[in-house]
Amino acid sequence: MNHGAGGRATAQLVAELFGRAFDNPWLAQGDDGAVLPAPTADEQLVMACDGHVVSPLFFPGGDIGSLAVHGTVNDLAVMGARPLYLSASFILEEGYPLADLKRIVDSMAAASRAAGVPVVTGDTKVVEQGKGDGVFITTTGVGARPAGRIASGARAAAGDVVLVSGSMGDHGMAILAVRESLAFDSAIQSDSAALHGLVDALYQALPADAVHVLRDPTRGGLATTLNEIARQSGLGMRIDEASIPVHPQVEAACELLGLDPLYLANEGKLIVICAASHADAALAALRDHPLGRQAARIGEVIADDHHFVQLRTPLGGMRMLDWLSGEPLPRIC
Amino acid sequence: MNHGAGGRATAQLVAELFGRAFDNPWLAQGDDGAVLPAPTADEQLVMACDGHVVSPLFFPGGDIGSLAVHGTVNDLAVMGARPLYLSASFILEEGYPLADLKRIVDSMAAASRAAGVPVVTGDTKVVEQGKGDGVFITTTGVGARPAGRIASGARAAAGDVVLVSGSMGDHGMAILAVRESLAFDSAIQSDSAALHGLVDALYQALPADAVHVLRDPTRGGLATTLNEIARQSGLGMRIDEASIPVHPQVEAACELLGLDPLYLANEGKLIVICAASHADAALAALRDHPLGRQAARIGEVIADDHHFVQLRTPLGGMRMLDWLSGEPLPRIC
Repeated sequence: MNHGAGGRATAQLVAELFGRAFDNPWLAQGDDGAVLPAPTADEQLVMACDGHVVSPLFFPGGDIGSLAVHGTVNDLAVMGARPLYLSASFILEEGYPLADLKRIVDSMAAASRAAGVPVVTGDTKVVEQGKGDGVFITTTGVGARPAGRIASGARAAAGDVVLVSGSMGDHGMAILAVRESLAFDSAIQSDSAALHGLVDALYQALPADAVHVLRDPTRGGLATTLNEIARQSGLGMRIDEASIPVHPQVEAACELLGLDPLYLANEGKLIVICAASHADAALAALRDHPLGRQAARIGEVIADDHHFVQLRTPLGGMRMLDWLSGEPLPRIC
Repeated sequence: MNHGAGGRATAQLVAELFGRAFDNPWLAQGDDGAVLPAPTADEQLVMACDGHVVSPLFFPGGDIGSLAVHGTVNDLAVMGARPLYLSASFILEEGYPLADLKRIVDSMAAASRAAGVPVVTGDTKVVEQGKGDGVFITTTGVGARPAGRIASGARAAAGDVVLVSGSMGDHGMAILAVRESLAFDSAIQSDSAALHGLVDALYQALPADAVHVLRDPTRGGLATTLNEIARQSGLGMRIDEASIPVHPQVEAACELLGLDPLYLANEGKLIVICAASHADAALAALRDHPLGRQAARIGEVIADDHHFVQLRTPLGGMRMLDWLSGEPLPRIC
């Protein structure tokens, strides 16, 4: 990057790197943007965006490239949308090794292909050394939401059940374990994954309007996301701590570091809130999908003017599952 | 930002700052993305994205906030699309003054309102001091392209005329003058502006298929953009240097710094290439719009297997208007 010789050559190299990795007819149009087929008339457009500044850039289970695809695809998925297209903006720090950039872009392209969501347009900027940190990637996704899919945090209702699709805290702990150089028998893997297939499986098993809330508990973890839903819906929740799946390794690492897995980020997990009468069907649909094998029913929505999320501890006591106090762990995604 | 006290309070402050500034029903949905009305059935979807890392963040005629709106709106406009929605992703450096961030966000919101293109979804990340540089903003725009608007770099044809909507190099020189602390009687202003109104005026004056190419000559300036079009179309161009509008102050500053205004970035100028028979109507339509008062006919497209852009100098000689050699000026947008 900072060879001095030929900025234009480098710019072309980067453009070719992206063009080859993400190869699709829209990107190949070569204009200032991409012209795309529009969603069908009975669908709504959904738009979501996420900046990614994760540190380190590579971690067990993924890297900033795959994460940048999954993060935004999941924002669309939990809106009930079919993810259609992604844009990608790279902010590179001068001097970042091109070979590492290639690894990231290749991983991003693989995640995009696996998800079936092409990167159709993009942009690259370079900043001086010490003005960035390797690579930042912002992705924006456009999706189409079929009629009737109206899940929203505000639609939680008293009596609804709360489900999660699997273990909590894997992504957050995978990042922290690398940062803290924690040694385990095997590395803790990020759960980074695209959730739109799992959401589709859920919608195929339930009437669309029985799915009241869909969320992916990223920054701030399950605790923060449940509190957000409680505030949005004006209700409370009662959660059974023993029923929340947590990997033993994540639990051990949390004890070591004095952290609570319920506040750690997830990048491939779904929270589902649905009518109690559909809970069994929803749980079965989740467990039937590779990304939902460990799905569990963890609690219920209750009337509560204080919008509290209460946690029943394994010993039978109750404690408040409060908002995260202080900043969430920095640069976890 | 780094008060230590209450990361959550700060996060809320930022969210409220954005929510208040960009206030619109989609952003207010408060979910992980925005649900939007889709374009009509006879329109195509257009998507464009731009990362903004301009330095300094404030400059005569604009700031990174207004630039982030104009940059992406213009990418959509030159695709022939009606700009509909923007997403905005902020990467903030820890310790950046909240008052300055508010100025940027307010300016961005004003530009968004003036353009009639709401910021419907967004994201904010914070990185440590020395890992960013104040504020980076990535915007992605979604637009709808009416049927028949098929302008593209590849559609230039031999015999077409080349028009520009106004003076060249204003944005690039406005940034450089601040960086180099050049003192003029009055500051050189960036031309940063949203071009979709000007493009609409053009399409109202001409049959849609007579507009062959639309471009905004940003990084690398007029010279680079014309070379890109020549390559895309497999043709050459002959440009008359004396006919290219350049502000006297920009010209004087260029002489001082040893720069060529044709390689400096513009952020509110349009290149139009159209059939010769429609050139007068196109020029009149441009001049009739506030952003095109100084529009000029600067040359023509010619057959040329080498895809050269030739410049007729004021003295009557010819010289090659080559691609920019070396990196374009860093962090100009």
